[in-house]
Amino acid sequence: MTTTQTDSKLNGFDAEALKATMAAVSADPAQGVAGFRVTTAWKGGTRSDSRVKGFTLGGRQIAKDFTIRADEPEELLGGNAHANPQELLIAALNACMLVGYVAGASMEGVRLDSLEIETRGELDLRGFLGLDPAVKPGCDSLHYSVRIRGDGTPEQFRKIHESVIAHSPNRFNIAQPIRLTSDLVVG
Amino acid sequence: MTTTQTDSKLNGFDAEALKATMAAVSADPAQGVAGFRVTTAWKGGTRSDSRVKGFTLGGRQIAKDFTIRADEPEELLGGNAHANPQELLIAALNACMLVGYVAGASMEGVRLDSLEIETRGELDLRGFLGLDPAVKPGCDSLHYSVRIRGDGTPEQFRKIHESVIAHSPNRFNIAQPIRLTSDLVVG
Repeated sequence: MTTTQTDSKLNGFDAEALKATMAAVSADPAQGVAGFRVTTAWKGGTRSDSRVKGFTLGGRQIAKDFTIRADEPEELLGGNAHANPQELLIAALNACMLVGYVAGASMEGVRLDSLEIETRGELDLRGFLGLDPAVKPGCDSLHYSVRIRGDGTPEQFRKIHESVIAHSPNRFNIAQPIRLTSDLVVG
Repeated sequence: MTTTQTDSKLNGFDAEALKATMAAVSADPAQGVAGFRVTTAWKGGTRSDSRVKGFTLGGRQIAKDFTIRADEPEELLGGNAHANPQELLIAALNACMLVGYVAGASMEGVRLDSLEIETRGELDLRGFLGLDPAVKPGCDSLHYSVRIRGDGTPEQFRKIHESVIAHSPNRFNIAQPIRLTSDLVVG
């Protein structure tokens, strides 16, 4: 791909702004608390619209407005209008790790030419269907392939790869157990 | 919301087809293996396009074609063109659980009037930024509120709620540790 680059925004990423963020969060960790909220509305059958109206950073509310749509394919009893929830989860993993590679390369002064992450996983539907309590409802594992090209050395790319493994938020959110709590409001 | 319903597709969901799927997968578990693949391409800066070209079910390849876009907000060094990866992850969780409520209600013969899931979580950016090895890069916890309305009894809704906790694939994928493996291809 072709990207327009200046020294200060190698890879279209502002490494100087990242350094400033690191300094600010280091000085006052409360500035680095990011809060996310997504509200998902049923649209009939297996269709849903997830709405993002804003997020918080350091206690400050920042408006945004995006909708993320989902559906199941016909073979999984939906209308196939959109990607399904498992595909959204994998996209969330890939997109987060991708930011890590771009940030890491930019901090190293490595110009990227291309970057692609392909991830595969399987579900055994006996888990979701409740047919066998010994079968887990989710994935046993996910495997991802990272294809990266640029002017870094193999050692630099390996270092960035390891840093993403250590520091990617969504990689952590999938690889490590996250505590989920809920409340149910009827009517 | 208003949905068009027939007895056979209460909530716009084909409960009879789900029963047929359960019988088929029960008789031949290999028919219930679903394989997902998502390829995410860098689009400059923190932008990415995740492409879904198909999935497999019982070894059969089924074509589809969807793109899931992501970006970081300006405050997190992106261009704010799309929802960010954490929001995508939460949408993936919500959308998957929502399918579970719809399937569960439909199997119980409960007509749903509305269903909404709102999920919140926080990240301490010191983890992603590598500022403190004691700070995890991902979320400590996520909390979701389910607001459901329909002609079920409180006991029925509670039973469906517990079933989603036990059987939702993406809830499992976040609440339980998933093994992640990777390979890095440079150049």
